[in-house]
Amino acid sequence: MAGTDQTRDPLLGGPAVILIEPQMGENIGTAARAMLNCGLTDLRLVRPRDGWPNPKAVPTASGADAVLDHVRVFERTEDAIADLGAVYATTARLRDQLKPVVTPRRAAEEMRAHHAAGVAAGILFGPERTGMTNDDVALADAVVNVPLNPAFSSLNLGQAVLLVSYEWFTSGDSTPERRLDYEEDAPPASKEQLVNLFEHLEDALDAGHFFRVPEKKPSMQRNIRAFLQRARLSEQEVRTLHGMIVALAGRRKGGE
Amino acid sequence: MAGTDQTRDPLLGGPAVILIEPQMGENIGTAARAMLNCGLTDLRLVRPRDGWPNPKAVPTASGADAVLDHVRVFERTEDAIADLGAVYATTARLRDQLKPVVTPRRAAEEMRAHHAAGVAAGILFGPERTGMTNDDVALADAVVNVPLNPAFSSLNLGQAVLLVSYEWFTSGDSTPERRLDYEEDAPPASKEQLVNLFEHLEDALDAGHFFRVPEKKPSMQRNIRAFLQRARLSEQEVRTLHGMIVALAGRRKGGE
Repeated sequence: MAGTDQTRDPLLGGPAVILIEPQMGENIGTAARAMLNCGLTDLRLVRPRDGWPNPKAVPTASGADAVLDHVRVFERTEDAIADLGAVYATTARLRDQLKPVVTPRRAAEEMRAHHAAGVAAGILFGPERTGMTNDDVALADAVVNVPLNPAFSSLNLGQAVLLVSYEWFTSGDSTPERRLDYEEDAPPASKEQLVNLFEHLEDALDAGHFFRVPEKKPSMQRNIRAFLQRARLSEQEVRTLHGMIVALAGRRKGGE
Repeated sequence: MAGTDQTRDPLLGGPAVILIEPQMGENIGTAARAMLNCGLTDLRLVRPRDGWPNPKAVPTASGADAVLDHVRVFERTEDAIADLGAVYATTARLRDQLKPVVTPRRAAEEMRAHHAAGVAAGILFGPERTGMTNDDVALADAVVNVPLNPAFSSLNLGQAVLLVSYEWFTSGDSTPERRLDYEEDAPPASKEQLVNLFEHLEDALDAGHFFRVPEKKPSMQRNIRAFLQRARLSEQEVRTLHGMIVALAGRRKGGE
């Protein structure tokens, strides 16, 4: 479709972030940066205090032009969410209305399910000081509440947008929780290379009279082999260790 | 132990946060706020550019005095981590050394396990612009890398501290992912109250000739009962709905 602005398809680029009556341009910029950090691009403003565009948003956005350049401004929250099928309101307290309260992690999972089903989602954030009005909360399907230290739970706007956006990103991210990135020229050592290293080291230790109590030698060897295995050595590191053994054993002999 | 400063027990208050050569006092304050949001209190600084205390940290800390008042300053990273048994380095790239790379979520789980075993943990953050030196990274057991939009992954110091601290908090938090908080004076409606409501509504709809095709009536009733059940009504809301039916049925009769 010629002329279609792909960035305005509410299913592309993840959930919309809707800031209601944001006061400080700096906070709009910080929110835009946090969104793009997490792959979100659809930022909507309802009655921004200082109008839009706001030059104060540019420095704190740190280059998140993909977000700032496509901001849309609305007069009413109802209009800002008109094209969405699932809306979450971020607010600390819920007054006078019974509404599901979810964690950011759960909200992210639910929004992923909505998007997979073709339902566009969005997240409402209230003004910096006063928070969201009850009437705006009433437009949401659920409330997002960030679990934090109950004695010190207040987040600023940019931090709130970051945490909710971060949960969106991680809910769709497949980064291994823990990994070791061996270099191409130094892959993990094979077990044969490791056993050669163990034997080189044990022979050198024998020559240096390290195993003084013969009946303890087997368990001492197992312990040494255990910590060397825990290190997950690369081929290069095994070569380094052979060299270290030679250097130490050589110096020891010379010094005796 | 009289005179013992309990805040300095490295196992109380969660992992230590160690900022290496932080430049802006504002960022130290933002980090302190993010830490306390997430229940962390042990902040350590290595060679802060503008010395310590730094009045510029106070406004951005937003009252996180429990952190700021107990900051400790060190000349060397080695000294700042001397009492810790497990250290993580937050850095985007790892150069010249093979080290496990973990997500913040995994780091939090590992630090929980360390603390449960009596091993104090800490997280290193490098200077704002240049990041951590290779020698400081070499002191860490593992590197923490925050999975983010690869095309726009740069976080500022406060945001990085927030995300890592947030994962620590949520890894120990038992907030239900989704809940409905009924008021004490308006508990969830019982099934008897719901069935009474269904029957009241269906009688009123019958009287208003809503069910025009008799054979479709059972499935229409089931559909209406389904969405009313999805609403998880409170006792008070059931009473409100009874009143609404009376109001609507009364007006309709009068208008015919």
